[in-house]
Amino acid sequence: MLKRYTLLLAAGLLAGPSAPAQTAPAETKPLLGFTAATAATEYQLEAQFDAQLRAENLRQWMKRLAARPHHVGSPHDKDNAEFMAGLFRSWGYDTRIDVSYVLFPTPKLRVLELVAPTKFTASLTEKPVAEDATSGQTSEQLPTYNCFSRDGDVTAELVFVNYGVPRDYEELERRGIDVRGKIVIAKYGGSWRGIKPKVAAEKGAIGCLIYSDPKDDGYARGDVYPKGPFKPESGAQRGSVLDMPTYPGDPLTPGYGSTKNAKRLDYKKAPTLTQIPVLPISYGDAQPLLAALAGPMAPEAWRGALPIPYHLGPGPAKVHLQLEFNWKTEPVYNVIATLKGSQYPDQWILRGNHHDAWVNGANDPLSGVVAMLEEARAASELYKAGWRPKRTLMFCAWDGEEPGLLGSTEWAETNAKQLQEHAVAYLNSDSNARGFLSAAGSHTLEKFFNQVGRDVTDPEKKMSINDRRRAYDLLNGTPEVQKDARDRADLRIGALGAGSDYSPYLQHLGIAAMNVGFGGEGEGGEYHTIFDSFDHSTRFKDPDFAYGVALAQTMGRCVLRLANADVLPFEFQNFSNTVAKYHAEVKQLAETMRTETERQTKLLAEKRYEAVADPTLTLLPPKAQEAVPYLNFAPLDNALAKLEKSAEAYAQVRKSSGAVPAARQQDLDQLLYRAEQQLLSAEGLPRRPWYRHQIYAPGFYTGYGVKTLPGIREAVEERKWAEADEQIRRTAAAIERFSGQVSRAAAVAGPAPAQ
Amino acid sequence: MLKRYTLLLAAGLLAGPSAPAQTAPAETKPLLGFTAATAATEYQLEAQFDAQLRAENLRQWMKRLAARPHHVGSPHDKDNAEFMAGLFRSWGYDTRIDVSYVLFPTPKLRVLELVAPTKFTASLTEKPVAEDATSGQTSEQLPTYNCFSRDGDVTAELVFVNYGVPRDYEELERRGIDVRGKIVIAKYGGSWRGIKPKVAAEKGAIGCLIYSDPKDDGYARGDVYPKGPFKPESGAQRGSVLDMPTYPGDPLTPGYGSTKNAKRLDYKKAPTLTQIPVLPISYGDAQPLLAALAGPMAPEAWRGALPIPYHLGPGPAKVHLQLEFNWKTEPVYNVIATLKGSQYPDQWILRGNHHDAWVNGANDPLSGVVAMLEEARAASELYKAGWRPKRTLMFCAWDGEEPGLLGSTEWAETNAKQLQEHAVAYLNSDSNARGFLSAAGSHTLEKFFNQVGRDVTDPEKKMSINDRRRAYDLLNGTPEVQKDARDRADLRIGALGAGSDYSPYLQHLGIAAMNVGFGGEGEGGEYHTIFDSFDHSTRFKDPDFAYGVALAQTMGRCVLRLANADVLPFEFQNFSNTVAKYHAEVKQLAETMRTETERQTKLLAEKRYEAVADPTLTLLPPKAQEAVPYLNFAPLDNALAKLEKSAEAYAQVRKSSGAVPAARQQDLDQLLYRAEQQLLSAEGLPRRPWYRHQIYAPGFYTGYGVKTLPGIREAVEERKWAEADEQIRRTAAAIERFSGQVSRAAAVAGPAPAQ
Repeated sequence: MLKRYTLLLAAGLLAGPSAPAQTAPAETKPLLGFTAATAATEYQLEAQFDAQLRAENLRQWMKRLAARPHHVGSPHDKDNAEFMAGLFRSWGYDTRIDVSYVLFPTPKLRVLELVAPTKFTASLTEKPVAEDATSGQTSEQLPTYNCFSRDGDVTAELVFVNYGVPRDYEELERRGIDVRGKIVIAKYGGSWRGIKPKVAAEKGAIGCLIYSDPKDDGYARGDVYPKGPFKPESGAQRGSVLDMPTYPGDPLTPGYGSTKNAKRLDYKKAPTLTQIPVLPISYGDAQPLLAALAGPMAPEAWRGALPIPYHLGPGPAKVHLQLEFNWKTEPVYNVIATLKGSQYPDQWILRGNHHDAWVNGANDPLSGVVAMLEEARAASELYKAGWRPKRTLMFCAWDGEEPGLLGSTEWAETNAKQLQEHAVAYLNSDSNARGFLSAAGSHTLEKFFNQVGRDVTDPEKKMSINDRRRAYDLLNGTPEVQKDARDRADLRIGALGAGSDYSPYLQHLGIAAMNVGFGGEGEGGEYHTIFDSFDHSTRFKDPDFAYGVALAQTMGRCVLRLANADVLPFEFQNFSNTVAKYHAEVKQLAETMRTETERQTKLLAEKRYEAVADPTLTLLPPKAQEAVPYLNFAPLDNALAKLEKSAEAYAQVRKSSGAVPAARQQDLDQLLYRAEQQLLSAEGLPRRPWYRHQIYAPGFYTGYGVKTLPGIREAVEERKWAEADEQIRRTAAAIERFSGQVSRAAAVAGPAPAQ
Repeated sequence: MLKRYTLLLAAGLLAGPSAPAQTAPAETKPLLGFTAATAATEYQLEAQFDAQLRAENLRQWMKRLAARPHHVGSPHDKDNAEFMAGLFRSWGYDTRIDVSYVLFPTPKLRVLELVAPTKFTASLTEKPVAEDATSGQTSEQLPTYNCFSRDGDVTAELVFVNYGVPRDYEELERRGIDVRGKIVIAKYGGSWRGIKPKVAAEKGAIGCLIYSDPKDDGYARGDVYPKGPFKPESGAQRGSVLDMPTYPGDPLTPGYGSTKNAKRLDYKKAPTLTQIPVLPISYGDAQPLLAALAGPMAPEAWRGALPIPYHLGPGPAKVHLQLEFNWKTEPVYNVIATLKGSQYPDQWILRGNHHDAWVNGANDPLSGVVAMLEEARAASELYKAGWRPKRTLMFCAWDGEEPGLLGSTEWAETNAKQLQEHAVAYLNSDSNARGFLSAAGSHTLEKFFNQVGRDVTDPEKKMSINDRRRAYDLLNGTPEVQKDARDRADLRIGALGAGSDYSPYLQHLGIAAMNVGFGGEGEGGEYHTIFDSFDHSTRFKDPDFAYGVALAQTMGRCVLRLANADVLPFEFQNFSNTVAKYHAEVKQLAETMRTETERQTKLLAEKRYEAVADPTLTLLPPKAQEAVPYLNFAPLDNALAKLEKSAEAYAQVRKSSGAVPAARQQDLDQLLYRAEQQLLSAEGLPRRPWYRHQIYAPGFYTGYGVKTLPGIREAVEERKWAEADEQIRRTAAAIERFSGQVSRAAAVAGPAPAQ
């Protein structure tokens, strides 16, 4: 996946208020979208599905798919696609490989030297280890690099910029440090990596290095590979630095499919390439550079685990960075396997996981791929035994996710119209490991997903994966998360930012999406290195593939229930409750900024910063900020009041009325699954029209950190008050449209004839 | 000093609610204890005092006193005492050197080896640096050791215990790790060092190592000596491990003076020696030992800055620790210089600072000593010009502070009766450096001290030291501290725990005390090493002795005002307000423990810990705790209500009535300065009767961290509910006695004749 897996603390999913493990027989549990009778059939089907799942299949496929490096453009990447297509076909799926043609630069020249005050040449090479069978496949491995960096040849003094996010530059500024004309060195972490060169360039830097500090995934976390799972001295994290918060996918075909003959931008003018050259390095290569810095000490929170004082610079360390890339166009191979629905063939349930990797990618992405393959195989066995899904299943193994969601985005853009007509939901997974359920997605699916997690058993604890997650939240959550875990019937799912293939479906096309995985117990430092191997994965991540099977059970249930439901299991009260929560957060954010701005304005006027500053150091007062005005939140308050009513009305109708008459069934489903599209705005978000969802988006300056109510929240954060007011209105309008659709659904579902 | 200087965040001192720097002429400012007329005279005197102060004197004296190592028993220690006595005499003070005879063990044999799985012998030697003129005086330097460790010869597996405080052992226990029969290695920090071997022994460990992690005062903080001020690889912190929270001073003469022929305990039976051998080591010596540990990773917060994974053990690292000491009795030389009061010679103003060091001790303690010497010299100049203090001044340069407040405690115990009759207040300083005022002490002196800080100018910022401290609190304080800094007329002074020579005066004898210093800008890693030198101090701590002079101005004002006041400037409303705050804290503590215990009991009953635990690791649930009962705080509520009234009554009387008639003056003063003694209980604190103050004590398990309302607070923390109730009554009784005394003072001060 594009981003490191992190346990979504904000998320939490499970049914029943602080319920002990469910003991009632499965048949008696209600299923959203099913009657008691059809639910009983569904449960039987799911038991058959579970009985099909074989951990050994996952192991064999992972070994086979991870046997060689399989990045975009490599022989094994294409070979893997064909192998998977073959499997799907052998299971009876209507399978095709859809090809897009995307820009995919690879390194031609990489030079990094310390040229003053001493000399040092960075090795830029990961060292294979004897204990790892594939780490020595050096001739096929992509060198360590950041994909979609520009070419460049720069020499300048170095500045250490912590994570390289905007707040870090404010700290530097207070210390009198300007990065204009400098090369910055940032730690991995704290934001998506692509933010670092983007912000550095905005601040005037001419080059950017990103290194993995051992504090974050090296020896400070535990023993390093191969003794333990963490990053050894030579390990360097590859990864995309495409400006995905602007738009993902092929940088040369913004908003439309990169078919063979599509019109393409000149790559030198592509807006999502970095403005400056950027290179990822290991901590072995970083240490001599950082140790050569002088100047003030970095703020305490910035310092890592290298055995040196972390100085900020600039200089006297001076570095030379030279990068040249092969700017080639490569095919990406999306494997699409379809099982047609018997009753509503035009309603598509999409299930996806990418298959390309940076190197061997056993964990990222194959741990998710092999679960999906086993889901498809198990479903095919049910089919052989006579089951017919009402709706169409589509399994999608995406290529080119790592460089920037290339495969999934281009496919989504190519098929946009059909998808908006037919796609019911997009269900994604990616890397997977031992531990706790983590799920995020459209909150119209929150209640549905809570019923799924309720019915899957944690392989280690033999309780539901929801119960285990609830226990985690109760022990480790913030007070707010603990309270929810105690008091809320459904545990909360997180919101989706960016970082895997759900983005184009949810945020560009308005298709309800989920992203699901397990983790928290299989941590390591192998991410995007040559050490993400079958050996590493089976020692440290999920040795017996038990969580791979659990993922298959979870996503299998999602697919089967969506495919088989009498009425699509969307629900709007949880959504309403969640958006109200986001609204309260944004209001609170403005309030907190107002108070903090007042406090700071007062401290500035009183010259308290000057009073405190050590005269032997530079620490300037922070910049004065304009007072935070009161914003007009009324349009959103009104829209949310309507949303609450319409959501309740739909719930009432569904509770009180019996089965929906067949004649209205398809209309109702359509209203339900196309409701999410009402949350798109035609204009998209400010300065990034590709992102059209008014509720969820990746942060413009965080990358994968989600921003909920993004138009409003980012305007407030960036103190664009007029824009905040405008975005409140626009978001309110989207929610009003959505409420209208829900009201229509209530009408169609209810006893009165459809209008 | 015994403890590292830390900026007391809890403290904060200054007059005027968020007032800009005072601009009114000094003469118009009110002075507690003075009339407008006598205040004007006092201000003139202080201006003359300031005019006398010469930074150059401080420099020359520090150079001379720090020229050689001057620990207890060394030739230079005695020589320094005689030099200072000579100075005092030359200034006209009646000067004597009072000698006590104290146990002072020094190392005979120190061996530390890693014996498995590999071999390594610790050097236990600090490496002199060429850039430091005295660091090479190896023949006179005490080796690195912990004074009052027992002899021992032990070999066992090693366990890493973080800071070695009780909470750390709870974490180990949850990980299934038992230290019985093991040797523990703890980091310096998190508690006073003597707590570490004490707790280790309670838990069954047979040996203890304490090392300085580079995260705390080595390269992670900044450049190491001599390039910067921080601890180099070979630096090891000497220091006492006497069980001072039980009682300080000579371990062989508990509660009475160690005169030449005093009856002494057998040292092997002395209760304040450690139960197990303990040795401090450098991070250079610690790294191979820590690197040889296996077992679970230490919790994240425990890990330091060495470039290794911090494992807990036990083993396979196995170490051999052998220690033998010379158990000698040594003389300690307290220099006592007296200037008799003209009007109330039986009222003594004590001003003290220790003079012994672990090695050359330029910062600790000489930075404080030289300020005190200059105060005494300046006062003598005023005397020569005709000034006569009403009350007696006593300057005290203590010996033997480092091993355990030996000089000051034995002198206090020897002269206990006289001191309780005559001592008005004890004013202490110790190490001093650039930065912010930090003051702690009896809150009956809080208002008085606020007026002192109001009138001293910060050398760097040319504002009052109070204004600068208030700015610090406004910028860096907790919300509560910020609120106080905005809204409270007086900034709060801290409470005194332990760590320097005020302990016997305040906590054993009930003499109001203050401890004052500057710091926060001159940090380093030299503490108790051979690098605490004149060179280090004049490069990094207070290069131009400006803060030495500021300390002399501050403490000089304290002495002069106490000596000259018409009525002693004690004030009780701030004290009342402060004790009420402590009371609220303790109530809140019980409340928080109750809620947290309920939460944990519930989580345990629901088996949530088991649900979350990674089955490949050991993480047992925490131990079940008895529910927290509701305590009877009523006696204290009632006592505090009375205290508030009596404090207000005294304030009213002092405000409304004019000068106190001469006949009642001495009675009033006596009631005032002996009020603090009413806060002692005859029984002392549970299990440590030497500590008799019911409001302030060092924590039994924190060492120098103060515990306010210690009897109650520690009973609650340790869940001794019956004892908590008993201590509430006992503390209430002490406060009632105190209120009674304040009421008597109000009566004597008032228009009515004294009773």
